[in-house]
Amino acid sequence: MNRRKFFRNTSLGALGTSLLAPFNSLEAAETAASFKNKKAKNIILLVSDGMSTGTLNMADLHLTRKTGVGSHWMNLYRENKVTRALMDTASASSVVTDSAAASSAWGGGVRVPNGRINIDANGEANLPIWQKFKSAGKKAGCVTTVPITHATPAGFCINIKSRNDQDTIAEKYLEQDFDVLMGAGNEHFAADKRKDGKDLYHAFAAKGYSVVKDKKAMQNASSQKPLLGVFYDSGLPYAKDQENTKELANSVPTLAEMTKKAIDNLKDTENGFVLQVEAGKVDWAAHANDITGLLYDQIAFDEAINAAMEFAEKDSETLVIITTDHGNANPGVIYGSNANTNFDSIQHYKFTNSWILNGLGKESSINTVKERIAYANGIAIDDEAAKLLLSYYKNLNTDAGWYNPKKLPFRPLAELQKEHNSVGWISMQHSADYVELAMYGPGSELLTPFIKNTDLHYLMLNTTEVQNNF
Amino acid sequence: MNRRKFFRNTSLGALGTSLLAPFNSLEAAETAASFKNKKAKNIILLVSDGMSTGTLNMADLHLTRKTGVGSHWMNLYRENKVTRALMDTASASSVVTDSAAASSAWGGGVRVPNGRINIDANGEANLPIWQKFKSAGKKAGCVTTVPITHATPAGFCINIKSRNDQDTIAEKYLEQDFDVLMGAGNEHFAADKRKDGKDLYHAFAAKGYSVVKDKKAMQNASSQKPLLGVFYDSGLPYAKDQENTKELANSVPTLAEMTKKAIDNLKDTENGFVLQVEAGKVDWAAHANDITGLLYDQIAFDEAINAAMEFAEKDSETLVIITTDHGNANPGVIYGSNANTNFDSIQHYKFTNSWILNGLGKESSINTVKERIAYANGIAIDDEAAKLLLSYYKNLNTDAGWYNPKKLPFRPLAELQKEHNSVGWISMQHSADYVELAMYGPGSELLTPFIKNTDLHYLMLNTTEVQNNF
Repeated sequence: MNRRKFFRNTSLGALGTSLLAPFNSLEAAETAASFKNKKAKNIILLVSDGMSTGTLNMADLHLTRKTGVGSHWMNLYRENKVTRALMDTASASSVVTDSAAASSAWGGGVRVPNGRINIDANGEANLPIWQKFKSAGKKAGCVTTVPITHATPAGFCINIKSRNDQDTIAEKYLEQDFDVLMGAGNEHFAADKRKDGKDLYHAFAAKGYSVVKDKKAMQNASSQKPLLGVFYDSGLPYAKDQENTKELANSVPTLAEMTKKAIDNLKDTENGFVLQVEAGKVDWAAHANDITGLLYDQIAFDEAINAAMEFAEKDSETLVIITTDHGNANPGVIYGSNANTNFDSIQHYKFTNSWILNGLGKESSINTVKERIAYANGIAIDDEAAKLLLSYYKNLNTDAGWYNPKKLPFRPLAELQKEHNSVGWISMQHSADYVELAMYGPGSELLTPFIKNTDLHYLMLNTTEVQNNF
Repeated sequence: MNRRKFFRNTSLGALGTSLLAPFNSLEAAETAASFKNKKAKNIILLVSDGMSTGTLNMADLHLTRKTGVGSHWMNLYRENKVTRALMDTASASSVVTDSAAASSAWGGGVRVPNGRINIDANGEANLPIWQKFKSAGKKAGCVTTVPITHATPAGFCINIKSRNDQDTIAEKYLEQDFDVLMGAGNEHFAADKRKDGKDLYHAFAAKGYSVVKDKKAMQNASSQKPLLGVFYDSGLPYAKDQENTKELANSVPTLAEMTKKAIDNLKDTENGFVLQVEAGKVDWAAHANDITGLLYDQIAFDEAINAAMEFAEKDSETLVIITTDHGNANPGVIYGSNANTNFDSIQHYKFTNSWILNGLGKESSINTVKERIAYANGIAIDDEAAKLLLSYYKNLNTDAGWYNPKKLPFRPLAELQKEHNSVGWISMQHSADYVELAMYGPGSELLTPFIKNTDLHYLMLNTTEVQNNF
C-alpha cells in the first residue's frame, strides 16, 4: 500500500497540511542525495561561538512567539533542507574546550591544548585549513563580531602558541594574503594602539587591500580587491545596543551585512572560495549571563545564515556549515506559572546588560541604577538590589571595556532579571555539551549523526576534493 | 570521480578508518530508506523523563571516559542507524511543559494545559493512543521507574483532569486491560495504602493478571498472562543506590530487566504490540540537582535502549523511538583547569544525594554529615558546610520520602559538589529546551529534523497503518 496515500485517506487529512509536514523525512535524504558525488566549489562555515543548545532554542522560540516565524536555522530543519549532527567539542587538554583549541580542531584537523592555535600537545604546527585552500587556488576570508584576530578566525588562518598574542596574529594575516578580513580589533592594527607602534592598516593597504573602518566604506569597497574591515576597538557592540544607538547603527555593519559583502568579494573566482562567519559575541554574552546580548546576537547570526543560504541555494556548488564551537552557560527558560509572559518580556528589552553596567560607576546614585534598568528592561528593582549592584563598583576599574563580566556585577544582574524573564544559567563559563551542527549543499550527504570536531577538517577537504598532501 | 575512492587516495588514508567513519551519512539515509513503505507492527517508545541535552551528553562522556565505549544511544548515531529530530515540547499553557501535558501531546495528539492528562483546554477528552492500539488489536504496556500511575505512562493510557489523582488512574488502568504494567506505586494499589481501602492487586489478579512484587516473581511470571509488577511504594530507588544496596539489587528489577520482560510478554501476537519505557527518575534527579541519581539512572535508561534495540534489530518490524518529554535543570560540565578529573570523580560516587540526605536528621552530628558525604562521594567537606546542611533539618518533616528536593538541602549539596565535580545546574525545574529524538526501524524514515510533540501521535498511527477514526 502507498503509505502517503494511506495517510491522506485517514481522518488525519481533515487536520490540515501542518500535520503532514513532519512526515517527509526521506525527502531530506533525497535532498542530500541530490548532492551526492557533487564536488563543493565553495564553503561557508557559520559559527555562533559559545552557543549552548538552549541559546539556539530560545532564539527560535523568541522569534516564533514574536513574529509567528521561527529562526532561519530551525526553519531549515522545518523545511527539511539540511543534514545534522551532534559534535563532540573536546580539546586535547580538556572535555571543555576554549575557542582557540576548538577552532584549531576544525582548522588544523588535530586537537590541541586549550589556549593554543594549531600548535598541538607535541609542539607540532598543523597547517591551517584556509592556508590549504589558498594553496589550492581558492579565495579565503573571515568575518566576525569580535576582533578578527580572535581565536575562532585565527584557528582557520595561522599557527601561534598563545591565542592572546593578537598583535602578532594580525601580522601573520598580512603574510598570508587572505582575501577578506572583517570584524573588530582596531587595537591590533592601529599604530597608536599596538605595542610595537606598527601601522598595520598602512601595511595592508600597501599590499593592495581596501581598508575600511565603517559601514558605508565597506559597502563602497571594490569587489575586485582584497578587503580589510575593522569597525571597532575590541568586540563590535552587541546587536541590540547597536540597533538602539543611532551612531552605531550608522557606522558599524551587522554580521549579515559583512557576510553579504564578503560573499560579493569572494564569489567571482574560477576555483571557488571559503568563508568563516563568526557570531563571536554570543560567547561573550554567555560569559556575562547577558540575555539581551545573547539572544539578539544569536538572531543577528541567524540573519547571517539567511544571507549565506540565499547565496548557496542559487549557487548550488556551496557547502554551508552551521554550528558552534562549544556550549556556554547552558541557558534555558525555567518552568513556572509566568514562564510565557516572563520570556516574552525580553521582546521589549532595549539594551544589553553590558550597556546597563558599563554606563554606571561608583558615583552613580541608587536612582540612576534603578532608572537605567527600568529603561533597558522595563524592570523595577528595589533600593536593596540597586545598592547590591553599586557595591561592586567601589574598587572597580571600569576602563577594561565591554568584555569584563567577572569584574562588573553581571552575575547579580542576571539573577535579578531571572525573576522577571525566567532565564537561568549554570555558570559564566563554557560547557562540555555536544553541540548542534547542520549542513546544506554538496558534502552535506557526508555528515553522520555524531562527529568529533576534528572530523570537520577532513570533511571540508574531502567535499572540495582538495588533496590533503601539504 | 568516485568520491570515496578519491578520499582513500589522499593522505587521510594513513590516518586510519576512524576518520573515515563520519563520511558515510548517505548510508544512514539508505538504512532509513530500507524501511520505506514498510509497516511497523510494533512500537517501543523509550522516554528519559526530564532529560536535558546535557544529561544525554554527560552519560555518553562518562561512559566513553570510563570504558572507552560510549552510550548505546550515542553509539546508534556513531553507527548511523537512526534518524533524528529536535522536538518542541511546549504544552497548551506554557512554553515549559510538565510531564502530564507532555505525555498527553504524544498520547492524545493534542496539547493540553500543564497538570492534565488528555483533557484539553476546552475540556475535551482525547482518546489515548494505547487505547487506540488496543482497539486495533495490539497488545499495549508501560514500564517505568516511578509509579506506573505517574504522568508519563498515564498520558498514553487514560484521561483524567488531574495527574495527581493516581489512585483513580490505577483504577482506570484496570478498566482498559493493558497487557503489561510495571514500575513503582504500591501506595496506589495496596488496600492498606489507598484512601478508599480498595485492594487493586486483588482486582487485577481477578481479571487474570500475574501480580508480582519483586524481581524473581517478575522473571518467573508467565508470558501468556497480562502482567502487573509493582516493586516499591513511590519511585523505585535510584539505579546507583540499588546497585550498592544488596537487598534492593535482589528485589527490584532494573529498567532494562523490566523492558526485556515486557517485550517477552508482548511479542508473541499476530497484531503486534506497543510499549512505553520510562526512566522517570532521571526527572526526579534533575529536580534534585542530584548528579549521581541523574547520571546512573540515565545509564540505566541506556541499558533499556539496548534491550529494545536487541529485539528490534532481530525483529525488523519494530519502530523504536528514543527521546525525552522536556529538559530539566540543563546540567553541564563547566570549564576549568580540573574539569576532566572533577568530572571523572563521579565514576567513584557510591550513593545518590537522595541517599545522603534522607539518611540524615536533625539529631545527626557534624561528623556524621561529613562521613556520609565522604563515603558516598569521596569528598571532604568542612564543618561550616556540614553545619549549613544540618541547618535545613531543624524544622523538617523527613517522612515525605524520596522525592522532596525542595525540603531537604539538595540545592546546597549540589553547590558543594560542584566545586569537586564541575557539574552545574540552572535551576531545579523543567526547561523550554527543544529536545533530542531518535528513531530506528519502519517509520523512522518519516521523521523530519524538527517536530512538535503532537506530531509523534500521528506518526505512530501512520507507520502502523492504524486508521485514526476513533
